[in-house]
Amino acid sequence: MAKKIRVILFGLGPIGAACARVLAARPDYEFVGAIDLDPAKVGQDIADILGLAEKTGVKVSDKAARVLAKDAELVVHATGSYFVKVRPQLEQIIQAGKNVVSTCEELSNPWAQNPKEADELNRLAKKYRVTVVGTGINPGYAMDTLPVALTAVCSSVKRVRVKRVVDASKRRRQLQQKIGAGMTQEAFRDAVSKKEIRHVGLSESVSLVARGLDWELDKVQEEIEPLIAKNRVMTDHFIVDPTFVSGVQQFGRGIVKGEEKVTLELVMAVDAGEAYDEAWIEGTPNLHSIVKGIHGDISTAAVVANTARRVVEAKPGLLTMVDLPLVSAR
Amino acid sequence: MAKKIRVILFGLGPIGAACARVLAARPDYEFVGAIDLDPAKVGQDIADILGLAEKTGVKVSDKAARVLAKDAELVVHATGSYFVKVRPQLEQIIQAGKNVVSTCEELSNPWAQNPKEADELNRLAKKYRVTVVGTGINPGYAMDTLPVALTAVCSSVKRVRVKRVVDASKRRRQLQQKIGAGMTQEAFRDAVSKKEIRHVGLSESVSLVARGLDWELDKVQEEIEPLIAKNRVMTDHFIVDPTFVSGVQQFGRGIVKGEEKVTLELVMAVDAGEAYDEAWIEGTPNLHSIVKGIHGDISTAAVVANTARRVVEAKPGLLTMVDLPLVSAR
Repeated sequence: MAKKIRVILFGLGPIGAACARVLAARPDYEFVGAIDLDPAKVGQDIADILGLAEKTGVKVSDKAARVLAKDAELVVHATGSYFVKVRPQLEQIIQAGKNVVSTCEELSNPWAQNPKEADELNRLAKKYRVTVVGTGINPGYAMDTLPVALTAVCSSVKRVRVKRVVDASKRRRQLQQKIGAGMTQEAFRDAVSKKEIRHVGLSESVSLVARGLDWELDKVQEEIEPLIAKNRVMTDHFIVDPTFVSGVQQFGRGIVKGEEKVTLELVMAVDAGEAYDEAWIEGTPNLHSIVKGIHGDISTAAVVANTARRVVEAKPGLLTMVDLPLVSAR
Repeated sequence: MAKKIRVILFGLGPIGAACARVLAARPDYEFVGAIDLDPAKVGQDIADILGLAEKTGVKVSDKAARVLAKDAELVVHATGSYFVKVRPQLEQIIQAGKNVVSTCEELSNPWAQNPKEADELNRLAKKYRVTVVGTGINPGYAMDTLPVALTAVCSSVKRVRVKRVVDASKRRRQLQQKIGAGMTQEAFRDAVSKKEIRHVGLSESVSLVARGLDWELDKVQEEIEPLIAKNRVMTDHFIVDPTFVSGVQQFGRGIVKGEEKVTLELVMAVDAGEAYDEAWIEGTPNLHSIVKGIHGDISTAAVVANTARRVVEAKPGLLTMVDLPLVSAR
């Protein structure tokens, strides 16, 4: 067996903990440190936070610098969605000489919105000879890496269209709230304007598709619209009556010379029905794919865990999922 | 733009020529030499063989050593299906210091049937600091790399099942012949025993799936059965009456401790109906995918051309599609 990869956990909220649980089940990883600012977690054995059967001896600390000084090959970072906000943490990890796999949505392709800062982080990662990758199910896989992987069988590609439908009816209350379930249309628009309702990462996915196909986009656009319930919908957390908001429909568009080359449509609703991921590749040949079963929560943790070894082995720098060797469940 | 990749073509049969045509349409490749033993091709400008609008100045030669001495980053090799048969050519290319992407079916995972020889070729490639990859649509992508890529969203995988259906009714006469169209069942069994009917590469695909998931297989099995026409089928080349053979059904199975972990089913028939590629991943979560539009001839050339740059950029050695960075149409 390959040498065990020593891991420091940075952020033990629901997503960070889910990633850690997948790694804990694999024999080729061991935890050597854990960082979280939550006073309720500090001092606890991570086994208690993750629900592991046996104590690990690794206790949560709020002293990031001290934990990052330990010997480790990888930091699993899960503290936020916005690149600019988590950047100081990433810099601290890089300067400690550790590779990073992060759930930060905007880090899946930070050049999309912050090219200058992304270039700087890339240089820093190269200087310290570590690899930095942001990933997850979306952005990071379902709407970008997967359709890019499909184009391997095309001699040329003109256009990529992707539709992802998420059935929010069985998901956590926070997710149902985040998509506006039960709101009036006015409340929805107000929440959108305050950026309280929005899937973070659609622009990053659009740009990641373009990066995977060597396309230079002139413009990336996002749109967001409410979906309106036609029938009464009841979840464990909300009752949504007809004319109220059942969820959100978001579009991401990548434009080259006035032509829409990339179209991503994301539907998340409590009345969405069966979830699926569909893609149309217009090219030679034309392709159509439909995948069922990708699960938002499980799959984000899975993608991060499956990417972990690739990040440790990759060349230094700030990379994306379309730059790494094939990621799979190993 | 990146520096142009200088390419030597080794083998200008239908598949090699198709690969070359895809590369010819891309600005980042240039041909510097071409090797073929066919006297009808030797001395011709490759533009005439590929059907390109403009002469290239590159003439076909049957002097492999002389052509391989030219400055080039990559050889596109398409001379045969069997690893042991093409091995001397591969060694010659490697010793000339050139990277290789090859359509040789068994080279897609030569460890499947010839582990010792594969290890030797791997060592030779490392010694000469070149990369060697065998690929194509099948083996190389549809039944192996693509299902492996899907498992990125799974935290664990128990079993992989893949079904590929090829509609042979519109394909070349040679392909229809190769799948036994129009034969009696007796003639089919006779042709199978002489290995005249068989898709080459199913064992390689089974082992490639296992490699992509870090599984050690105890056994790989292949089975081949005739498919029998229920109704009269007419193609441009054959008339198949009921009770005669309409095509072939082949199974590849990967076994671990008596358990079938990988099941690949390949159907190629003149009455197969619409073609598709279907996969079932049994794991956490379970996945089901269906892709329509992958085209046997176009897509093999596309996969080879799309893999070309990855081969040039990869670390030295004999690699497979599940070891390379994500291949896409770029």
